[in-house]
Amino acid sequence: MNLVVYLAGEIHTDWRETLTALAKEKNLPFTFVNPQTNHDRSDDIGEAIVGKQPNDLYRDKVASDVNNFRTTVLLEKADIVVAQFGEQYRQWNTAMDVTTAIQANKPTIIIRPDSLIHPLKELSNKANVTVESVEQAIEVLAYIFE
Amino acid sequence: MNLVVYLAGEIHTDWRETLTALAKEKNLPFTFVNPQTNHDRSDDIGEAIVGKQPNDLYRDKVASDVNNFRTTVLLEKADIVVAQFGEQYRQWNTAMDVTTAIQANKPTIIIRPDSLIHPLKELSNKANVTVESVEQAIEVLAYIFE
Amino acid sequence: MNLVVYLAGEIHTDWRETLTALAKEKNLPFTFVNPQTNHDRSDDIGEAIVGKQPNDLYRDKVASDVNNFRTTVLLEKADIVVAQFGEQYRQWNTAMDVTTAIQANKPTIIIRPDSLIHPLKELSNKANVTVESVEQAIEVLAYIFE
Amino acid sequence: MNLVVYLAGEIHTDWRETLTALAKEKNLPFTFVNPQTNHDRSDDIGEAIVGKQPNDLYRDKVASDVNNFRTTVLLEKADIVVAQFGEQYRQWNTAMDVTTAIQANKPTIIIRPDSLIHPLKELSNKANVTVESVEQAIEVLAYIFE
Amino acid sequence: MNLVVYLAGEIHTDWRETLTALAKEKNLPFTFVNPQTNHDRSDDIGEAIVGKQPNDLYRDKVASDVNNFRTTVLLEKADIVVAQFGEQYRQWNTAMDVTTAIQANKPTIIIRPDSLIHPLKELSNKANVTVESVEQAIEVLAYIFE
Amino acid sequence: MNLVVYLAGEIHTDWRETLTALAKEKNLPFTFVNPQTNHDRSDDIGEAIVGKQPNDLYRDKVASDVNNFRTTVLLEKADIVVAQFGEQYRQWNTAMDVTTAIQANKPTIIIRPDSLIHPLKELSNKANVTVESVEQAIEVLAYIFE
Amino acid sequence: MNLVVYLAGEIHTDWRETLTALAKEKNLPFTFVNPQTNHDRSDDIGEAIVGKQPNDLYRDKVASDVNNFRTTVLLEKADIVVAQFGEQYRQWNTAMDVTTAIQANKPTIIIRPDSLIHPLKELSNKANVTVESVEQAIEVLAYIFE
Amino acid sequence: MNLVVYLAGEIHTDWRETLTALAKEKNLPFTFVNPQTNHDRSDDIGEAIVGKQPNDLYRDKVASDVNNFRTTVLLEKADIVVAQFGEQYRQWNTAMDVTTAIQANKPTIIIRPDSLIHPLKELSNKANVTVESVEQAIEVLAYIFE
Repeated sequence: MNLVVYLAGEIHTDWRETLTALAKEKNLPFTFVNPQTNHDRSDDIGEAIVGKQPNDLYRDKVASDVNNFRTTVLLEKADIVVAQFGEQYRQWNTAMDVTTAIQANKPTIIIRPDSLIHPLKELSNKANVTVESVEQAIEVLAYIFE
Repeated sequence: MNLVVYLAGEIHTDWRETLTALAKEKNLPFTFVNPQTNHDRSDDIGEAIVGKQPNDLYRDKVASDVNNFRTTVLLEKADIVVAQFGEQYRQWNTAMDVTTAIQANKPTIIIRPDSLIHPLKELSNKANVTVESVEQAIEVLAYIFE
Repeated sequence: MNLVVYLAGEIHTDWRETLTALAKEKNLPFTFVNPQTNHDRSDDIGEAIVGKQPNDLYRDKVASDVNNFRTTVLLEKADIVVAQFGEQYRQWNTAMDVTTAIQANKPTIIIRPDSLIHPLKELSNKANVTVESVEQAIEVLAYIFE
Repeated sequence: MNLVVYLAGEIHTDWRETLTALAKEKNLPFTFVNPQTNHDRSDDIGEAIVGKQPNDLYRDKVASDVNNFRTTVLLEKADIVVAQFGEQYRQWNTAMDVTTAIQANKPTIIIRPDSLIHPLKELSNKANVTVESVEQAIEVLAYIFE
Repeated sequence: MNLVVYLAGEIHTDWRETLTALAKEKNLPFTFVNPQTNHDRSDDIGEAIVGKQPNDLYRDKVASDVNNFRTTVLLEKADIVVAQFGEQYRQWNTAMDVTTAIQANKPTIIIRPDSLIHPLKELSNKANVTVESVEQAIEVLAYIFE
Repeated sequence: MNLVVYLAGEIHTDWRETLTALAKEKNLPFTFVNPQTNHDRSDDIGEAIVGKQPNDLYRDKVASDVNNFRTTVLLEKADIVVAQFGEQYRQWNTAMDVTTAIQANKPTIIIRPDSLIHPLKELSNKANVTVESVEQAIEVLAYIFE
Repeated sequence: MNLVVYLAGEIHTDWRETLTALAKEKNLPFTFVNPQTNHDRSDDIGEAIVGKQPNDLYRDKVASDVNNFRTTVLLEKADIVVAQFGEQYRQWNTAMDVTTAIQANKPTIIIRPDSLIHPLKELSNKANVTVESVEQAIEVLAYIFE
Repeated sequence: MNLVVYLAGEIHTDWRETLTALAKEKNLPFTFVNPQTNHDRSDDIGEAIVGKQPNDLYRDKVASDVNNFRTTVLLEKADIVVAQFGEQYRQWNTAMDVTTAIQANKPTIIIRPDSLIHPLKELSNKANVTVESVEQAIEVLAYIFE
């Protein structure tokens, strides 16, 4: 039984690499997928494909078309979603990915620092598990196969 | 035909009053519902009901239990969701409410200032309409009955 | 038992008035709703609300945002969809409305002239009933209450 | 991770061959499926199986039975739908396939020439991405695996 | 709380009148709906609306279009389905109505004589309750309001 | 906005009367429904309708047919489920009612004494709110209308 | 792409063997599954497992428990349902299997002799394709892979 | 065709080993999964991952977070659920697992001693099959492949 895990959230730290390495170390049968983690590429992807748009609003519009397309394809294939929230940025698309997973009955783990307990309280409440570190998240994932 | 509209988002400005007044002025057949808009009450509601908790994490936990209960009841009755995002706070529960509505196929309007175009681009992309003001939102709502 | 009927399709003939009048004559307990039937208003609605867009593509984009918002609200409330296809225009949003209704298990009647039998064959095949005139459609609707 | 892509729409140009060749060139892990692309076969399939029908209406009826059977089987297996609209024909079954995919939460790309922007505006608005060429569509598909 | 009860099945006995009268006697808050119970009208309805068809197969086809339209509208509004199976006819549309109700999670009562226990065993097994008489069925319905 | 509240669980104490009285006192717009609360009637209902069965297994079988029929009808109409677990009995049908509500996305409140914290931990974890008294439950319900 | 085909219906003729042999001849990538086709075994399976029951009603009850269990498992795995109706027996479980498949959006083919056109008209109307012979059914199945 | 079977319920007897061994003996193509069957580990898993909690209520809360996460992942992958209820403990999470499976249309077998017929009657009524021993359960499972 191989499970697909979608790694949502923060793209400016190397938490995905850490988590993936730990899973490999433990020989856990997961396939990891994720949103575009190159921030510039993600902002530019719309214009890169359909060409220069008349203003920033529409530059963002065509980028989000393609980003949401990608996310929807991969999220649909995922059995589990792990999302890391960080201090930087508003990360509303992370909140959107997590909620989409919850509504589709996909089990969800949130990783967040103590400082975000309060603003994330309603979303944490709907996710299955909330932890503070990648190490804790991998223990939750490993528990499936105990 | 009376429609229920859930007004998600910002609770520190009077946008709900403005929107409701405009709807009344135009005799639009809407019933408006909303999350708890008293911030302190919303933070305190858990302990107010089940008593003092051992720490802030669990104070937030019991509050979010009751807030999510309320939101789920009202969102389930809503035909339409209008959400205003503002500059203040991270508003992840607003993003959660909007995504929940989208996943449940409820038509959704986002109101946000220009400054939030970029961080909201993926969520705007999934909502039906994004506008910049309450006045524009009410015009979208009024269009249903033209 | 009052039923809501969404009248999709052709907006350049008076078939909705004819059908509504016939329903009234027969005292059938239907509430009729429809897409925006003023073609110019429907094309202009986006810019009328959010202002002039940089080009025709985006003029159409903001119009379709609001038109789809309206349609989704009303279609969701409908118990039945009746759609008239005519010779003019490509009417892809009519095909979209009918398919949306079919996928949501809403009973559907298509009205179309003989000349459109062939191009509409797959869609007719999925709708419940296909007829050639408003008079026939009203007989199908009346049959519910016999 | 192999993904199934349903190629809906136009059957009188070789866009499927172009798209498939480009995917192969880029080693993208897609399996492509499509509706019957032989127009005569598609029109004749009903009578070919159940025999001569009394008139054209019923010739079309038995053909659409079998075409919709095929399409439903393959669309159900698809992870993604790409649909090309062209200038010729009314293509209501293409609009039907795209809407069916959207309602089933399957990510969707529309390819259409500039001349069809206006009549397709509501359907484009519901699809994830709209582009003008097969080359752009393949870039969107490739982006999933970046 | 008023509940809609769809009375499926046998149309050659007066069981619907008996059941309805008993419900009235007990002041039970039910609205009863049913398929077309005039057998000839039900067989003729297609041709009555769209005109004479080339053969019996297509006469039946157009009749079943309209009958299924009617049934789907009313079944969708029903909270409960009661179906009486009798000795006469094959009653496959009754089995279809009951199964449709079961799949849509609508509580279902089957009424059938002892002689039909064996052929109905799998369908009875999926319905909530199977009884032998209208009097027993009305007791089950009355139990909701005790 | 009137909401239907299904009161699942314990039938040997008067918690439903207390809760209903408190709701009336506060003028809360709820309609309360519940399972059969007369234990003997609930055990006997099957045989009372279809007659004496050959053994206790089948006496229980016909009773549960009718009880599940009733529960499904009323649970389907409910917007909210409140369930009280007590020390007595195994109450597996209460656990079933609560889980059915949760799976159908109906907001759920569990009332249970401290002594049941441990055995109910997984079910509490899925319900929206868990409290210890009817008074607390009514405060959660009242919060919807603040 | 391998597809699972559930062969519902008639168990007293060798139509399944004919169909399977034809599929093999044409190298069609189907896996065929079916209900229990040994009539005696199917009637006896309940008592064979849980022991002698007090009467025929309950003998049938325990048999249908196990038969419905089997059918539900296999139908859930099926991509396509083919059902043959014959002259013998009432075949209500075949009607139930077909309707279950239709409600679950599984493409469905009915095979029936001319003599059953009329009693099957409403069910045929909901299935995708109705044919008169196994040979025709296999042509419909083969068309998927053209 | 390999099927995944989730073995819910009792963790203090070796029924899972017996059932698995019998399946192996019969060469049945099942993959078995189960909840955490080490009781202490299951009670401790929350604190083992996120650390000591302020009291028993919250110790149980964090344990149930992780247990429900695990169960949801595995139940979602299951084609069939078999649940054994025993005399010991209240087993509300077993009732929850079974109901979740039933609501998700997953075929379900309950194993229980005679002494639990009465308290389990409503849940048994919703499951497909109820038996008294592992040997009987394996016969039901084997019947799928006859």
